[in-house]
Amino acid sequence: MTARSVSILGVTGSIGQSTRRVIEEVRAQGAEIQVEAVTAGANLPALVEACRSLRPRFAAVADPALLLDARDALAPLGVEVGAGVGALEEAGARRADWVMSAIVGAAGLTPTMAAVRRGASVALANKECLVCAGPLFIEAAKAHGARLLPVDSEHNAIFQVLTHPERVEKLTLTASGGPFRTASKEAMAVATPDQACAHPRWSMGRKISVDSATLMNKGLELIEASYLFGFKSDLIDVLVHPQSTIHSLVHYVDGSVLAQMATPDMRIPIAYALAWPDRALVSAARLDLAGVGQLTFEAPDSERFPALGLCRAALNRGAAATTAISAANEIAVEAFLSGRIGFLDICRVVEEAMSELEGAESGLIAKSPTSFDEVAAVDQAARGAAQRIAGSLAAA
Amino acid sequence: MTARSVSILGVTGSIGQSTRRVIEEVRAQGAEIQVEAVTAGANLPALVEACRSLRPRFAAVADPALLLDARDALAPLGVEVGAGVGALEEAGARRADWVMSAIVGAAGLTPTMAAVRRGASVALANKECLVCAGPLFIEAAKAHGARLLPVDSEHNAIFQVLTHPERVEKLTLTASGGPFRTASKEAMAVATPDQACAHPRWSMGRKISVDSATLMNKGLELIEASYLFGFKSDLIDVLVHPQSTIHSLVHYVDGSVLAQMATPDMRIPIAYALAWPDRALVSAARLDLAGVGQLTFEAPDSERFPALGLCRAALNRGAAATTAISAANEIAVEAFLSGRIGFLDICRVVEEAMSELEGAESGLIAKSPTSFDEVAAVDQAARGAAQRIAGSLAAA
Repeated sequence: MTARSVSILGVTGSIGQSTRRVIEEVRAQGAEIQVEAVTAGANLPALVEACRSLRPRFAAVADPALLLDARDALAPLGVEVGAGVGALEEAGARRADWVMSAIVGAAGLTPTMAAVRRGASVALANKECLVCAGPLFIEAAKAHGARLLPVDSEHNAIFQVLTHPERVEKLTLTASGGPFRTASKEAMAVATPDQACAHPRWSMGRKISVDSATLMNKGLELIEASYLFGFKSDLIDVLVHPQSTIHSLVHYVDGSVLAQMATPDMRIPIAYALAWPDRALVSAARLDLAGVGQLTFEAPDSERFPALGLCRAALNRGAAATTAISAANEIAVEAFLSGRIGFLDICRVVEEAMSELEGAESGLIAKSPTSFDEVAAVDQAARGAAQRIAGSLAAA
Repeated sequence: MTARSVSILGVTGSIGQSTRRVIEEVRAQGAEIQVEAVTAGANLPALVEACRSLRPRFAAVADPALLLDARDALAPLGVEVGAGVGALEEAGARRADWVMSAIVGAAGLTPTMAAVRRGASVALANKECLVCAGPLFIEAAKAHGARLLPVDSEHNAIFQVLTHPERVEKLTLTASGGPFRTASKEAMAVATPDQACAHPRWSMGRKISVDSATLMNKGLELIEASYLFGFKSDLIDVLVHPQSTIHSLVHYVDGSVLAQMATPDMRIPIAYALAWPDRALVSAARLDLAGVGQLTFEAPDSERFPALGLCRAALNRGAAATTAISAANEIAVEAFLSGRIGFLDICRVVEEAMSELEGAESGLIAKSPTSFDEVAAVDQAARGAAQRIAGSLAAA
């Protein structure tokens, strides 16, 4: 791997920590990786631990109240420290060849855009950049010559086997099917947050676990894939594959289907994004297909999992609708996790919020946002609609 | 697809006919494909039919007795005609950008070498070029700048996903497991030629069907893969995969495993080789994983299928040993198909023939052949040894 400077936006989260392990491993093999900047939310001990290993030039904490503590802790390591949203943006803006965008949620957008505007290679683990502001984000990347390297295991898989982008017939995103793959609709109607969060394959946060259970996560990935690779929704299939071994597939016009497989270890797509266009040696567990024994596949059930159809409809409607569906879903999942609505109500809230926005006099959802401020306005409108609908369902 | 001139060595066989269908299909889409030469063995009606569609400049028949008949039949089409081994060689030597090497058996070697010496792109469906004369053939291709495009579904799969040849950890060749995958050793001992030829997935000739039943075919493919891609035998695994949907896999140092999948239709690898480095639109049946439902994998049983181990041992021993094992197997399969020896005797004959050659005073198998004449000498010695051993087994 050639020498490079990197920054990690969100170094204390799960992806950030995996990125750190990959960097430590390739450094131990002799790769020259200079870390320019790292960021954290409020987890100071984890930030200090990361800085001790990575030795960045600059560290930013999101919480301004932590500035002095962070300075005290990091000064001995020779790390310059900043705090607040301006410091997060500075972390993205500072010169580094490669930037891992792993801040969770909308907070990741501004620092990632700072890296995009520099024309950096951006390893994209933050979903909001694409789901909330897809076309704007993609256009900015093109305009500034920023290379986007998808880290999500499905998109990374597609990226790995996208040998002939002009000769693609369709893409297939695989989905584990989540904890309710074989559940009856009756059982799903009374599912608890803990049941919804018991994901069969990956250990994840509660919001994304619920998204996996509704398949909304796959729907949002479909939106991401559409923006990232430039394919319309009808060229992107979703296939339920409970073993999560094949991470996604690309179908070509000659009948060949290429796939990437691996054990479920995020170091693998992170290392691919880091070493791209080369590959790096990583000690993740090796896939043993004879040990796995069998891989199974089934079409998703659109009756029990309406989220996929809702996301396809939003994609067909345009960029404002994809911004809105993600925001409405966030509110609906919160309402479910706090016990205010049932599991099946999540998609009901989303669907009704989308209907309401489509019928709104403002016409907010009909036109594509032309700025991040317009994106934020759509986002707010969708949250407001979803809150009202969730509230009336909770009261019923 | 850019305009190109092509020749098809072995146009009337199964691969040749599939090649013709691919060419007809891409021509219908507007691709400019000029056919320079085609060859056939003795099937004049099929040759005439092929010439009517392909309109080659030159056609060669292997059987010299057919020269006048062929001229009579092809003159109205404006096709120049030759016959005999010299004409086959001329077909390979005539200027074409791309040559399909699909003559079955050792007869394919000379015309394919003629194409290699011109530095053509050679789509390789003939197994003998690699199995019998691998290192010599590969060296010749390198020396003359000939690009080898593997057509065998397994090697073509590897070729399609060999994105980082320097970063490969291992290759996996998949094997259907053949008709005796789940058979007891007792049942295999009394298996008839018809039982051995009842391949579960592909319809093939009797010799190669028996090779599939013994897994010798996979062992020979392992030898081919080793020479073609430059990996030692211990970096090439064999995995039994009865659905034959994943055609082979490449494992990278970062833990990613890339695979090519497709329905079992040889037009798919042929089209890939023809259009390479582009891809062409081909109407082969599309893979439907939800329809397939499940893919299964198991390690091969080296006790019931010793052929894999024999081929690995030959590879480790060197080029003369791989020449010898292919020749000895040919004789052993003939003896089985003619009812002289039992199914399990095939590998016994091969194993004993290899032992005999290794112990031979001539030392023939110890040194790598430096010419095709030396290859032929090893081939003859192996056939002689195998004949004697098969004879003694038959007499016992």
